[in-house]
Amino acid sequence: MCIHIHDAQDHPPICIYITHNPESSKFSTKLKLNSRENQGAMATEVANKKVVLKRYIERGETPTESIMELVTAEAITLKVPEASPPAVLVKNLYLSCDPYGRFIMSRPEEGIKITSAPPNSPVRGYGVAKVVDSTHPDFKAGDYLWGITFWEEYSLITPTEFNFKINHTDVPLSYYAGLLGMPGLTAYVGFHEISSPKKGELVFVSAASGAVGQLVGQFAKLMGCYVVGSAGSDEKVNLLKNKLGFDNAFNYKKESDLGAALKRYFPEGIDIYFDNVGGAMLDAVLCNMRLGGRVTVCGMISQYNLKALEGVHNLLSIIGNCVRVQGFTVGQYLHLYRDFEEKVVNYVKEGKITYLEDVAEGLEAAPAAFVGLFEGKNIGKKLVVVAREQ
Amino acid sequence: MCIHIHDAQDHPPICIYITHNPESSKFSTKLKLNSRENQGAMATEVANKKVVLKRYIERGETPTESIMELVTAEAITLKVPEASPPAVLVKNLYLSCDPYGRFIMSRPEEGIKITSAPPNSPVRGYGVAKVVDSTHPDFKAGDYLWGITFWEEYSLITPTEFNFKINHTDVPLSYYAGLLGMPGLTAYVGFHEISSPKKGELVFVSAASGAVGQLVGQFAKLMGCYVVGSAGSDEKVNLLKNKLGFDNAFNYKKESDLGAALKRYFPEGIDIYFDNVGGAMLDAVLCNMRLGGRVTVCGMISQYNLKALEGVHNLLSIIGNCVRVQGFTVGQYLHLYRDFEEKVVNYVKEGKITYLEDVAEGLEAAPAAFVGLFEGKNIGKKLVVVAREQ
Repeated sequence: MCIHIHDAQDHPPICIYITHNPESSKFSTKLKLNSRENQGAMATEVANKKVVLKRYIERGETPTESIMELVTAEAITLKVPEASPPAVLVKNLYLSCDPYGRFIMSRPEEGIKITSAPPNSPVRGYGVAKVVDSTHPDFKAGDYLWGITFWEEYSLITPTEFNFKINHTDVPLSYYAGLLGMPGLTAYVGFHEISSPKKGELVFVSAASGAVGQLVGQFAKLMGCYVVGSAGSDEKVNLLKNKLGFDNAFNYKKESDLGAALKRYFPEGIDIYFDNVGGAMLDAVLCNMRLGGRVTVCGMISQYNLKALEGVHNLLSIIGNCVRVQGFTVGQYLHLYRDFEEKVVNYVKEGKITYLEDVAEGLEAAPAAFVGLFEGKNIGKKLVVVAREQ
Repeated sequence: MCIHIHDAQDHPPICIYITHNPESSKFSTKLKLNSRENQGAMATEVANKKVVLKRYIERGETPTESIMELVTAEAITLKVPEASPPAVLVKNLYLSCDPYGRFIMSRPEEGIKITSAPPNSPVRGYGVAKVVDSTHPDFKAGDYLWGITFWEEYSLITPTEFNFKINHTDVPLSYYAGLLGMPGLTAYVGFHEISSPKKGELVFVSAASGAVGQLVGQFAKLMGCYVVGSAGSDEKVNLLKNKLGFDNAFNYKKESDLGAALKRYFPEGIDIYFDNVGGAMLDAVLCNMRLGGRVTVCGMISQYNLKALEGVHNLLSIIGNCVRVQGFTVGQYLHLYRDFEEKVVNYVKEGKITYLEDVAEGLEAAPAAFVGLFEGKNIGKKLVVVAREQ
C-alpha cells in the first residue's frame, strides 16, 4: 500500500510505503521521497513566474530592465513529461547574474560562440535548484543541482554537461551559484590551469571584487603571490584590502593614467594579469608585463556594450617580453569540476576563503540585478534568490 | 723553428713549425693556422670598412639609407687586444638584414627590451664570420661562427650567448645567417615550441616568403599541416605555391577584405596563425580562429614605422574560442640551437627544405638592403655578402 501526502505548497508529493508482514502481524513503513514511479498520476500543476526576454539586446546597446518582462500567468506541471528525453524538473533557488549573459540575450552573431536564447523565452543562465522530478540517471528528486537553468520558478532541464549534482549541502547552497559554481570554477581554472602561477609572482586582477576576481585574488594569496586588484569604487577597494586579503587595490575611476597607476603598484612589472575588463586597462597592462608574463583573458566587460570594440594598441610589447595572452571559457574545463569542488569546499570549511555575495530578493528583482552588473553596482557575486529551501 | 707567412691580403698569418730530428737527420713540418701564441708580434693592421648609424631612427619614421653612412678610413689590428676579456676577432662574411634591426637603430624606449646601438657606432646584427684571432675558449682562429656581429669588415666580438661555432661547413655558410641561424631558429621555436602544432592542423603564415615565414610553412608541411601564406606581391605568392610547397597563398595587397580572404582559404577556421606583420592582418585573423587556436606573434612589421601603433579590435574573440596569443623572442630559446642545427642540417642534406636568399653584394649595399625590408622588396632572406670565403 502506498499513501501519497501533499502539502499546501508546491512541494513534490511524498510517498509512504506501508508493508504488512503476515508472520509477525506487524506493519512496517518506508518513506520514499518524490518517488517518480508512484507520483505519476498525482503531479501537481502550479503557477510558474518567469523573467522573459522581450527582444534581443542590440549591438552597442546598454542593457535596460525594459528588455525583460516578468510573466506570472503561466503554469507548469511538476513532472518531467513522459515523452521527454532524460530530464529534470527543478525548483529554482538561486540564479546567477553574469556579464556574459549579455551574449545569451543578444542577436546571434558570427564569431561569438554563445548560443542566444530567443526572445519570448525565459532568460537562460547558471543557477542552483532542487530536483522535483527526474528521469535522468544522475539526479533524483530531492537532489540539489547547479548549472544551466532558467529565470523562472520551475524549470524543465535536459541536463547536459552543464549540470552537476551538489555534493555538499553543509555549506551555503547559494555558493553553488558563485564560489562553488561557474564563477568559482572560472577563477580556479583561469588562475591555476591557465595563468601558470608560481609562488611569489606578481598578480594583477581587474574587476577584483566581482564574482571571479575576488576568488582569483584569494587563490593567488593562497599560493604566496603578491596581489593587487582594481575596482570601480572606494568601497570595493576597501573590501579588497580589508576583507579579501589583497595586498593592495585601487579605484581605476580615480586614475587619470592607468599605466602610471600600475607602475606604482608594480614597479618591477606584472607576472600575471587576470583580465575581466579588457579595453584601456588591458592596454595599460600590456606595457607593464614582465618577461614571460601571462595575461589570462576571462572577460572584457568594458567592451560588451560598445558598438565597435576599442582597439588594443600595445600588443607589440608581447613580443619583447615573451608574453602569453590566453582567452578561455570555463565550458572547456568542466572535467575539473569535481576536483575543484572538493578543494574549495575544504577551503571554505577551513575559513581560508571569503566570498562576497550581493543578493537580490525575488525573481522580480532579476532584471535590475543583471542591468546593474554593467554599471558596477554589484559588490561581490550578484545573485537572485528565487526561493530559499534547505 | 717557426716561420710566419703573410699574404698580401688581410688574411691572418700562417705559422709553419719546422722540426729537425737529429736521429734521422730529417726535417718535418707542421702547419699551425693562426696560432695565437705565435702571431702576437705579427698582428696585421688593415683598413676596416663599416656601416655606421648616423643618428637614431625616430618613432614614426620610415628608415632611409641616409641614416647610415659607409666609413672607410678606420683601421683595425687583427688581434684581440691583450687587455680584452675573452673575445674573438672575426672577418665578417655574411650579414643578416632583419626587420627587428629597426629597434637596435632606434632611440632606447621604455617597454622595448632591445638594447640600441648608439649613433656613430657600426650597425649591430646577426651575421656569419670567420675567426681571425680568439682568446675565447669556444672559438679558435679558423673557426666559422654565427651570431651577433657588426656591419663592418672585421669585428671584435666579446662572445656572449649569442655566438655559436658553426659545426657544418658542407652546407652554404650563408645559411647560418638565415635557415641555420637566428631566423631559422626563430621559425623552428615559434612553430614547434610555441604553436603546439598537430598533424592536419590548419596553419596561416603572414610575410610568408620572408626569412622566417618561408620556413614556418615548410616546417608545417613536414608535420602534415595545411598551410596558406600571405605575401605582398604575385611573384612571392607564386614562389610560395610553386617552390616552397605551401598549399595555397594570396597577395594581401590585392584583398580589400582580409577577413573574407581568410574565410576563402580557411572555411573551417585557422588553428595556428604565425604572425609576422601584426595590425590589420592580426585583427582579421582573430575573427577566424578555431576553438583552441594559437597565434604565435613573431613580429609586427606593419607597425614598426608607425608613430602610434594601430589598435587591434577583435581580441574579445579569443575568449569564446579559447585562443592563445603568444609573443616571443628567439633569445629565450638559444638552448635549443644545437638540436635545431642538427635536425635542420639533415633536412637540408635530404632536400626536405628549400631556402630562398635575397643577396646584396658588398657592405656598401647594406643600408639599401635594410631599408628595402620595410618596402617588402626582399624575396626570401635578405643578406649582405661582405666577403666570400671557404
